[in-house]
Amino acid sequence: MHNLSQILTDLQFSAVYNILSLGLAAMLATTAFMLASQKRVLPRYRQALVVSAMVTLIAAYHYFRIFESFKHAFEGTTGNNPHAYNVGYRYVDWFLTVPLLLVETVMVLALVQADRSRMLSRLVPASALMIILGYPGDAGEKWFGLGAPVWGALSTIPFLYILYILFVELGKSLQRQSERVRVFVRNLRLLLLGTWGVYPISFILNMNSDPNSPNWNSFMARELGYSIADILAKCAFGLMIYAIARTKSFEDDADFRAAEMKDA
Amino acid sequence: MHNLSQILTDLQFSAVYNILSLGLAAMLATTAFMLASQKRVLPRYRQALVVSAMVTLIAAYHYFRIFESFKHAFEGTTGNNPHAYNVGYRYVDWFLTVPLLLVETVMVLALVQADRSRMLSRLVPASALMIILGYPGDAGEKWFGLGAPVWGALSTIPFLYILYILFVELGKSLQRQSERVRVFVRNLRLLLLGTWGVYPISFILNMNSDPNSPNWNSFMARELGYSIADILAKCAFGLMIYAIARTKSFEDDADFRAAEMKDA
Repeated sequence: MHNLSQILTDLQFSAVYNILSLGLAAMLATTAFMLASQKRVLPRYRQALVVSAMVTLIAAYHYFRIFESFKHAFEGTTGNNPHAYNVGYRYVDWFLTVPLLLVETVMVLALVQADRSRMLSRLVPASALMIILGYPGDAGEKWFGLGAPVWGALSTIPFLYILYILFVELGKSLQRQSERVRVFVRNLRLLLLGTWGVYPISFILNMNSDPNSPNWNSFMARELGYSIADILAKCAFGLMIYAIARTKSFEDDADFRAAEMKDA
Repeated sequence: MHNLSQILTDLQFSAVYNILSLGLAAMLATTAFMLASQKRVLPRYRQALVVSAMVTLIAAYHYFRIFESFKHAFEGTTGNNPHAYNVGYRYVDWFLTVPLLLVETVMVLALVQADRSRMLSRLVPASALMIILGYPGDAGEKWFGLGAPVWGALSTIPFLYILYILFVELGKSLQRQSERVRVFVRNLRLLLLGTWGVYPISFILNMNSDPNSPNWNSFMARELGYSIADILAKCAFGLMIYAIARTKSFEDDADFRAAEMKDA
């Protein structure tokens, strides 16, 4: 935690304050939507929806904490504030949710058991490692004497490994999926690449900020970047998972489709 | 309760603060997951999932309390703080949740009624006794003139008895389970042994700490140890209970498996 003085401009304060509240609202609504939509897909795709709901539930908890932490650190007129902004909440959130996002991705494809286990046993540890290695770089302290660029670079190694599995290994498993599902999965991977790409950019934007005299525009940019990326990577991503589950439910069972679609 | 001065370093404070928040998030999400997954197993295994959800719900409540207690005791810049950290929350939590963890373990195996009653009538009192005997040793006061090592040793007696029942008695009942279930139960017992082993180690780490001048590294190690062990022993354990319930549901009912698994 840093002990930051309250020197955000009104614009900087409002921008971060409102995006954090937007994030919380989006996470809560997506959680409720995923749980309420269980019956709209076949049983075999419901696990993916439950996991997606857990991702946004965990994120909703953390957005509530981040919002409160931000208020304590920056609200008021007393200048210096003993309460400080805790960036740790974001990393704890990602430590739990990023592996789960990969779990829901693999789950919704309903791959054969062996393929599923093989993917998850590599994706889950790699994603947890990616987050753990990123934290020291963002916490603003030189852990083990290493600066933010080194931790950022270390964190990139498991990230590239995850991309390799998703784009090369998963590609092979997609051959047995229908054309519509393959298009969905391609878009899903692009959304993942696009949104996960925002995190390192946000990280780098704030990287050279001196903890004792922060650059508040960089701070704002990082918080906006993290929040928008979170909303896309968890809520929009979850809705794409739901769309895939619906499409595959219709393909698997014509009666189910007829019950759900008037033009079936 | 101890009246502790605020002399944790930033690193010590952040580490405990963030692990307590992580614990709360993990307990909440596991509770929701277990309740949302009821229909994903056959009715005969749902009792185990409900009990598991109660374990993590009780723990979520206590992690909220522990988190608040920790903040009151250590946050701020005033040095001494009238609010103090209450380790009692952990023991109240364990007093309720540890017997329930053993209940869910026995429940998920769907043993014959007589075996189930015989196990539970011994496991539940033994586990409650184990927690009650541990508390005086951790509360930092010489109850009945006995120090922490004596209470730790007394608490170990019911612990060994529980291990005897789980590894010897339960072993006999496992003969009638399938090979896959037996592997699961073996892993479940190892997880239990591994995580329950962290508690006495954490206890011992802090045992020689003088309440009037605490060793804060030992304090941090104890809190990290208890929290990580709790997350593994309740959340990871609950997910293994769920995996066993799923496997047994598939074994019991081929139609159920076919609806749930595409490669069935």
